[in-house]
Amino acid sequence: MGAALEDDTISAALDRAMAAGAEVRGTTSPNPPVGAVIVSAAGEVAGVGATQPVGGAHAEVMALRAAGEKSRGGTAVVTLEPCAHTGRTGPCTQALIDAGVARVYYLHSDPTSQAAGGARALAEAGVDVIKLEKPPQVEDALVPWLWAMRTRRPHITLKFAQSLDGFTAAADGTSQWITGEAARDWVHADRERRDAIVVGTGTALADNPSLTARFRNGSLREHQPRRVVIGKRDLKSAGDAASNLRELGYEQYESIDEALYELYASGARDVLVEGGAGLASSFLKADLVDAISAYIAPVLLGEGRGVLAHPVTQTLKEATRFQRVGMKPLGDDVLIEYVR
Amino acid sequence: MGAALEDDTISAALDRAMAAGAEVRGTTSPNPPVGAVIVSAAGEVAGVGATQPVGGAHAEVMALRAAGEKSRGGTAVVTLEPCAHTGRTGPCTQALIDAGVARVYYLHSDPTSQAAGGARALAEAGVDVIKLEKPPQVEDALVPWLWAMRTRRPHITLKFAQSLDGFTAAADGTSQWITGEAARDWVHADRERRDAIVVGTGTALADNPSLTARFRNGSLREHQPRRVVIGKRDLKSAGDAASNLRELGYEQYESIDEALYELYASGARDVLVEGGAGLASSFLKADLVDAISAYIAPVLLGEGRGVLAHPVTQTLKEATRFQRVGMKPLGDDVLIEYVR
Repeated sequence: MGAALEDDTISAALDRAMAAGAEVRGTTSPNPPVGAVIVSAAGEVAGVGATQPVGGAHAEVMALRAAGEKSRGGTAVVTLEPCAHTGRTGPCTQALIDAGVARVYYLHSDPTSQAAGGARALAEAGVDVIKLEKPPQVEDALVPWLWAMRTRRPHITLKFAQSLDGFTAAADGTSQWITGEAARDWVHADRERRDAIVVGTGTALADNPSLTARFRNGSLREHQPRRVVIGKRDLKSAGDAASNLRELGYEQYESIDEALYELYASGARDVLVEGGAGLASSFLKADLVDAISAYIAPVLLGEGRGVLAHPVTQTLKEATRFQRVGMKPLGDDVLIEYVR
Repeated sequence: MGAALEDDTISAALDRAMAAGAEVRGTTSPNPPVGAVIVSAAGEVAGVGATQPVGGAHAEVMALRAAGEKSRGGTAVVTLEPCAHTGRTGPCTQALIDAGVARVYYLHSDPTSQAAGGARALAEAGVDVIKLEKPPQVEDALVPWLWAMRTRRPHITLKFAQSLDGFTAAADGTSQWITGEAARDWVHADRERRDAIVVGTGTALADNPSLTARFRNGSLREHQPRRVVIGKRDLKSAGDAASNLRELGYEQYESIDEALYELYASGARDVLVEGGAGLASSFLKADLVDAISAYIAPVLLGEGRGVLAHPVTQTLKEATRFQRVGMKPLGDDVLIEYVR
């Protein structure tokens, strides 16, 4: 068994594992975007890995492959408790044991019953197993997956871009562009990390959105989320109104309940709801908003379209208070991120 | 003449001078809240000073006094070009020359004609004079004074606290407390830095505000801004509705123009407009909003009272875009600060 490494080494390795997991976010569902780092017995980072798309290797196996013989007597730092079950791939616990890893640190316990028990299996094989603690942070790519596992529905982030005084469009309906280029770039990078983008039929018909993750020059990013429309109105015979979605392909569900059931069943874990105001209000009223991404533009309009179409509460005391987890400058715009 | 100091030394001295100026903000009007640092020829901070209340010493004199003999051959770093005129106090340029200071760095040029010429007077006496450059920042205590000198009216900051979707009060009128304790503490610390707090008669009657700068336990902070009400409605015979202002004392003006003229004439340079929505809209429409302090609470309401009572613009293209200069976490709330 190797000697324990310094706390600083473990902390740096965890940051690197989290970054590796964040990089594959959006490409792994229904599997979680895990990151793993192997630190050699000498204290050097010997391998970094992340979950591959479904059917591919898990993060631990990728990191072990990269580390090779340096895994022996070394330390694994993983964002999620290693799995102990044989699914499409063999269990990661066995791979760690076979590679001679002496110690495993992990951040999140695995809440799924079939995979749980990984920490125990490792301990029984004589590996030191230590659970790490870290305050919740917006950069943690596993949060939506963990939440979806617990609630048995996709994790929902409500996203909107608004003027400082809460309008998503001016009185004449103009909303392009309420935020600046840096914010729009970030929106597209964020879409790429999601399993699905959801809008209501009203937005689909009014704005003719593409719901794609693009670069500034219009070309598509590598990963594209599923394009989802909720509502009963027909988009097929809507002429030009929804031509972009018809051309690119989309899924339509009649209700929020149906959409969440079908999305979860087909593997979506991390879903972004982009509006409009009617759909946003319905998600909020149903207590289905798990996170908020609010893009705030440096402009006051005084009137226009609101973020929500319906009242959520009559009085301040009854209003749900969210917890702020992120605050990001994007030119003169600001992105504030909340969880409930 | 002393040797030039390292850039790092000057930069650190400027930060310290700016902090000293920021500390006296709110107590110096109509004079500017200047900060000054004397660095000895050996490169050590020998004295720090800031503008005293009207009739008291200017920042340079305070710093020279603190430095004593160490001023000789040393360097002065000042946030504003030293004054060359004899007002209530002697000119600062002469004090610097008499103390044997070899070099003067200053951040802002003095825009007032009677005081200007300080840099030239110093140079003519053989002192090296260098103007510093720094990107605009929210911590710069001189910005409102400089702006007021240029426009011949007080600098106006529009302040509001709102839900994430732009409501300052819920549908039933409840607005206490939309933001949390950390934000409220900051609001009171900010009031203490201002020359005057302005509200409309509607707010004065509806909310019975005190417009004082208080600590959390309710006791008054050391400096209190002037309490100003704008509008024609009578507060004197309003019974309990405006009893706090009647008890504490207030000034009332019939119009924004009258208020700004009288406030400037009587020495106010840095004014905070706290609402309500009608007055905020009027200031914006008159293009009189120089800065915005927006406190954003982590809550969505869907309906309620808006930040503005009247439309500012019908279309996005015509909307004034402000420049973001600050972003401060206050618990789960966020303060975003803008200038135009």
